[in-house]
Amino acid sequence: MTLPTIDEAALRAAITPEIAVRSMRDAFLADGKGRTHVPAVINLDVPSTRGEIHVKTAFIDGVPFIAVKIASGFYENPAKGFPSGSGLMVVLDATTGFPAALLLDNGFLTDIRTGAAGAVAADVLAPASLGVVGVLGSGVQARQQVYCLRVVRSFARVLAWSPNPAHLDAYCDELRRAGYDARPAPTAEGVCRDADLLITATPARRALVEADWLHPGQHITALGSDSPGKQELSPACLDRADLVVVDRFAQCAGFGELKHALEAGLLTRNDVHAELGQIVAGLKPGRTSANQITIADLTGVGFQDTAIASEALQSTTWIAHRP
Amino acid sequence: MTLPTIDEAALRAAITPEIAVRSMRDAFLADGKGRTHVPAVINLDVPSTRGEIHVKTAFIDGVPFIAVKIASGFYENPAKGFPSGSGLMVVLDATTGFPAALLLDNGFLTDIRTGAAGAVAADVLAPASLGVVGVLGSGVQARQQVYCLRVVRSFARVLAWSPNPAHLDAYCDELRRAGYDARPAPTAEGVCRDADLLITATPARRALVEADWLHPGQHITALGSDSPGKQELSPACLDRADLVVVDRFAQCAGFGELKHALEAGLLTRNDVHAELGQIVAGLKPGRTSANQITIADLTGVGFQDTAIASEALQSTTWIAHRP
Repeated sequence: MTLPTIDEAALRAAITPEIAVRSMRDAFLADGKGRTHVPAVINLDVPSTRGEIHVKTAFIDGVPFIAVKIASGFYENPAKGFPSGSGLMVVLDATTGFPAALLLDNGFLTDIRTGAAGAVAADVLAPASLGVVGVLGSGVQARQQVYCLRVVRSFARVLAWSPNPAHLDAYCDELRRAGYDARPAPTAEGVCRDADLLITATPARRALVEADWLHPGQHITALGSDSPGKQELSPACLDRADLVVVDRFAQCAGFGELKHALEAGLLTRNDVHAELGQIVAGLKPGRTSANQITIADLTGVGFQDTAIASEALQSTTWIAHRP
Repeated sequence: MTLPTIDEAALRAAITPEIAVRSMRDAFLADGKGRTHVPAVINLDVPSTRGEIHVKTAFIDGVPFIAVKIASGFYENPAKGFPSGSGLMVVLDATTGFPAALLLDNGFLTDIRTGAAGAVAADVLAPASLGVVGVLGSGVQARQQVYCLRVVRSFARVLAWSPNPAHLDAYCDELRRAGYDARPAPTAEGVCRDADLLITATPARRALVEADWLHPGQHITALGSDSPGKQELSPACLDRADLVVVDRFAQCAGFGELKHALEAGLLTRNDVHAELGQIVAGLKPGRTSANQITIADLTGVGFQDTAIASEALQSTTWIAHRP
């Protein structure tokens, strides 16, 4: 007996940004309508090798599968010549609980569902017309956020800065090969001041973006702060914003940008405009004026994994052939 | 790319009660010495099909693998002709976090590690010489507890009662075929009064065992109460016992027999003699007199899964051939 397995290459072939954005829109819609069940995550530290293991799962009423995602980061790996991160998803049949498949995605599904969640946020919060998309970062999310954003908005140019300057040129080169007008910028401030939509996708542990760099009409998607200790925006940015939207209040209050603003006493729970799902479901408005400053604080929620995994199983044909 | 997979048949062939008891003794020893890291478990309810999914993991310093165990119980399955329970373990390399193997054990490893933990408890708490082993229950743990107990103690006879009388004769037949003198009894009280060592392994949701059925010198291993709402022993049993030992204080206080005794105000935290690992590690004594009444309250801890999974990988030879 074996478990049907889909590897990273097959998943990359099946899940396009367009499919991922549709899947995330459906997932946040379900969340807004109260159809998701999201238990607290497992965080296991492995002190002897500076490792951490995170397990997330969730059920979405009406979705035929449940993903249990296991992601690891072992920070002594690079010195040994291995990547630090690894990941897979075990997919269970939501009707019987039986194992249905193993997705050996090496984190790809997390990458693309995170990019797609940014696009869903931009779709309801960003200005209708975009000139410059600013990017802080030059890693996988700097890529996925742009590729997925393109599903919901066209834009003239990408202007990027990275805390890792060695990677910035390669990033811009890759985007240009993909057909984007992408240019490196010398400072984060310059990117922020020029951007109609700003994506912050760095592993920063203190604020990179100051509130007085923002301007009316701007939308920011902040997704680097996905675990305790991380931060990309000065708390004053959230205070200055007209709309602060979170993917999950409990998570953002615990380790998102929101946490820092709450701790600084600049915001209270009531200052959070909505969870993204509430806007997608039409229970709260998104952007209502061209002059609003909007911020989406995204930490990544387990129901996104269940949604993208279920999509992956349905988008591949092997399932008809499983034993 | 695929993940090396070991199926249930191969695991049953590799993991004997003797191997499992040795593995659990080592695991509780490590726990007693503070070498385990056990995060809180994930419990996900799937209300639409009366399902539940539980995820456990743990790291044991010095053990080369980490198991992430996914177990499910979907209580509408039997009406459809399927078993309610299912389970598998994903095994990660504890040094790099990379996926190392998939154990498609259908819950076998949990069954045998639970039986083996009972044996480890009996080894330090039961009288040296046993006549009658009493069993309440007739399911998989009624079997595994007896098979594993035999690794640490010989005994004359098994006397069993079951809340499911239709299964009791089949249970005794199976034990007799395995070489035990096993007899059914008409009442739980009769079993309890005759037993030198009593195993309670039922899904009971209220007390089956009364305190005045106990007698000096008796040991009880209670393992049915493994989630909220379950109970096998009257709280007065724990009050009457000379030594109450738990596998994990936080778990037993949350959903073990201990919970009911704490809630009844019959015990306080200080009345718990020890965690089992502390006794195995020699930090606290086990049974010190032939007249003590001892109770082991076992709920099952994630480090047991990591230990048995690591044992399984090391006990099978395929690992030398993995891609």
